[in-house]
Amino acid sequence: MKILVTGGLGYIGSHTCVELIKAGHEPIAFDNLSNSQRSVLERVQRISGQPLTFIEGDIRDGAALDAVFSAHDIGAVIHFAGLKAVGESVSQPLRYYDNNVTGSLVLFDAMTRHDVKSLVFSSSATVYGDPVSVPIREDFALSATNPYGRSKLIIEDMLRDLIKADPDWRIALLRYFNPVGAHESGLIGEEPNGIPNNLLPYIAQVAEGRRDFLSVYGGDYPTPDGTGMRDYIHVVDLAIGHVKTLSKLATGSGVVTYNLGTGRGNSVLEMVRAFEQASGKQVPYQIVARRPGDIAACFADASLAESELGWKAERDVAQMCADAWRWQSLPK
Amino acid sequence: MKILVTGGLGYIGSHTCVELIKAGHEPIAFDNLSNSQRSVLERVQRISGQPLTFIEGDIRDGAALDAVFSAHDIGAVIHFAGLKAVGESVSQPLRYYDNNVTGSLVLFDAMTRHDVKSLVFSSSATVYGDPVSVPIREDFALSATNPYGRSKLIIEDMLRDLIKADPDWRIALLRYFNPVGAHESGLIGEEPNGIPNNLLPYIAQVAEGRRDFLSVYGGDYPTPDGTGMRDYIHVVDLAIGHVKTLSKLATGSGVVTYNLGTGRGNSVLEMVRAFEQASGKQVPYQIVARRPGDIAACFADASLAESELGWKAERDVAQMCADAWRWQSLPK
Repeated sequence: MKILVTGGLGYIGSHTCVELIKAGHEPIAFDNLSNSQRSVLERVQRISGQPLTFIEGDIRDGAALDAVFSAHDIGAVIHFAGLKAVGESVSQPLRYYDNNVTGSLVLFDAMTRHDVKSLVFSSSATVYGDPVSVPIREDFALSATNPYGRSKLIIEDMLRDLIKADPDWRIALLRYFNPVGAHESGLIGEEPNGIPNNLLPYIAQVAEGRRDFLSVYGGDYPTPDGTGMRDYIHVVDLAIGHVKTLSKLATGSGVVTYNLGTGRGNSVLEMVRAFEQASGKQVPYQIVARRPGDIAACFADASLAESELGWKAERDVAQMCADAWRWQSLPK
Repeated sequence: MKILVTGGLGYIGSHTCVELIKAGHEPIAFDNLSNSQRSVLERVQRISGQPLTFIEGDIRDGAALDAVFSAHDIGAVIHFAGLKAVGESVSQPLRYYDNNVTGSLVLFDAMTRHDVKSLVFSSSATVYGDPVSVPIREDFALSATNPYGRSKLIIEDMLRDLIKADPDWRIALLRYFNPVGAHESGLIGEEPNGIPNNLLPYIAQVAEGRRDFLSVYGGDYPTPDGTGMRDYIHVVDLAIGHVKTLSKLATGSGVVTYNLGTGRGNSVLEMVRAFEQASGKQVPYQIVARRPGDIAACFADASLAESELGWKAERDVAQMCADAWRWQSLPK
């Protein structure tokens, strides 16, 4: 089946293209290259040993989408395209809402015009806001604490409204926890612009010597070692979750919602040690004040995806770090 | 001051243009005529005895907005444009989100480009969802029960995010209760397409003989006469509230939020009787089952607008009905 993958050359998008090809699908990567590299195309093809169709375009461009849907017999869409930096979303909310919300609406309108009504949407655990407890189940209350998170929640809400109006849609909302790692080939991975917003790319740059030390925000949380705990999931596991979700969509109807996480929390210091182990490098750190808005621990109840999709994360923290390091240290 | 009024030929927009002119402002009506008549332009001019600039255009058209901001030295925007039928929003959610949310984002982007950062946004009491109690204060919890309401809540949220990012903005969120009535000239009023969604236009059509009877949804609510109570506000009072809000914006900063209502609830049967009185016509009705989602009583605590804007609704139910009837019965 031909699958339109918006943001298909991005971090999660590119790994998903690899797994789609492996599973016998034909992904069509659509990407505006705003936060991805054209070179990823050739790398995905090298990993897969197969061509990947790439179309440069922006999801806010309905005519560009019409051209794609007219030229290709698309069976489903996996929608990754969107801006994703929390801090940036606070300082540039209109840009985030325009890219993420308006972009999604233009995409859903184009899908409607071309009668393509199967969609996997790239949501985020951020839609749980400050969860009342952990592990987090899919039926927990939803809220947003910043424009990035709000953009994800708004799109989820719109899709729930959409399916009430038109039950022909088949929609999966996938709520990612903390995607990390890279393809084991070392050819594709996360390539943050500027200072990394996420822990593992930052640790990797410290290990590499590009940054002096890691600031650990808060050492007095009620966790075993006092640092915050998160549910890190290997990007390849996440990508495989999308392929499993596509199979599920083909058999079902309505909206399904799954947490994609490991179901385990790892502390910042555990990740530091695992990365030191994997890289053989030192990762100096300093404990500094907590960041406002951060919570002590956040991890998924991932049992619904396991029971309904037959999927669970299989790559452990050692492999996440080893793959991240291989990607980081191989010449680009 | 030149004021861009989106949806300026619509029901509330046209009455606001009249009051803006009366207060010495120069409104520029921008309207796509999707739910308004071009003839309203001439009628507003007749009431005001002054010309009104009208530009036909859609708020989703950024280039059209650029042209308006370039051609006119706009000091502030009053943003009414949007779709507003709850039932329709349930069956056509993407259309509602596209018009209301995307349209607003395109407008806010254009305002940013032209450094026009004073905005009065037409919100709705629907953002209170099912309120925990009445009267409703502005600090009550917000939620949405349908795509129309969600579109209003999303835009409010976006504007609260916007001002955190750029404190140069001055924003007023006006939450309307139930606007009714018409200009006392009988020249402008509410002109619903098809079957009216709101009580008073429906009553008016029954009084006129265009419909046989009014269905009253629920006669067993815990209210004095068993029928639902709402806070009906005369559209001219509402329009004056916008003019007062503009003055407030000129002196303040940040986001201000006001309920625009009378602070009183009137039952369906009270409105029926008031309309019969005003029109001298019979309004036959039948009590039928409650509508899912309806609440017993909804009315504003309107004290914040009174203390901060020096505004309160002055036209009573008798005048609302008299003006609505004059508008309904004059030849169009």
